Amino acid sequence: MFALDPAFAASSHRLLELPLCEARLQDDSRYPWIVLIPKVSAARELEDLSPADLPRLMAEILAAGRAVRAMGQAVGRPIDKLNTGALGNVTPQLHVHVVGRRRDDPAWPGPVWGHSAALAYEGAALTHALGVARQALQGA
Amino acid sequence: MFALDPAFAASSHRLLELPLCEARLQDDSRYPWIVLIPKVSAARELEDLSPADLPRLMAEILAAGRAVRAMGQAVGRPIDKLNTGALGNVTPQLHVHVVGRRRDDPAWPGPVWGHSAALAYEGAALTHALGVARQALQGA
Repeated sequence: MFALDPAFAASSHRLLELPLCEARLQDDSRYPWIVLIPKVSAARELEDLSPADLPRLMAEILAAGRAVRAMGQAVGRPIDKLNTGALGNVTPQLHVHVVGRRRDDPAWPGPVWGHSAALAYEGAALTHALGVARQALQGA
Repeated sequence: MFALDPAFAASSHRLLELPLCEARLQDDSRYPWIVLIPKVSAARELEDLSPADLPRLMAEILAAGRAVRAMGQAVGRPIDKLNTGALGNVTPQLHVHVVGRRRDDPAWPGPVWGHSAALAYEGAALTHALGVARQALQGA
């Protein structure tokens, strides 16, 4: 049985269910940032996915990239570069980060992971970000 | 025409040509670490790859993961976790890092990217690492 690690609930908000992954918005308003968690029990590494799931994951990574771009555009901060990473050193359940980066963001040009404490979204900004991301991910 | 960014030659050693990517050994003896550069002109993001190239990239990422595991085993330091990342904030040509991580490595549990200066392989260790990685990647 698939169960989401509680660490994700503490750091992100549920966006929607894609065919393979649960898509979540990372609760850090400094970066448009989506986390994809494949709904596959006990998966820790990409190699734990089935041959059928791998292209699906790639499709959902591309969709998350489009959504992250849309989030940047929607707040007048278009992104310069996508960063995609599957690390899992802290939370080993398989998950993929898709982050929109700008040359003026706090961690540039380094990675966002482990850089500094998140700056949570405030009310209206959270609602807006969730709406933009969900619209962009619909049908992915 | 595809051309490798000179930054890769400065930081890594050519392993072999896979169907989609040039595979290179990152010249940092602290981590078994392979870099995959798709041989696609002007590609910067995953979305710049064709629908046919995307599953090929995923297959080569999995092969690089197996090679990184083999490299860790070969020196008696089996890895605890794979880290896979496509960042490109410094070198925008599309490339994917596949890094074998251990709980006792210098950057754990943070990312290796941007952590600290590389510790280059010395002669025999480089030859050995290249040999193990090439053997593991053959036929990928």
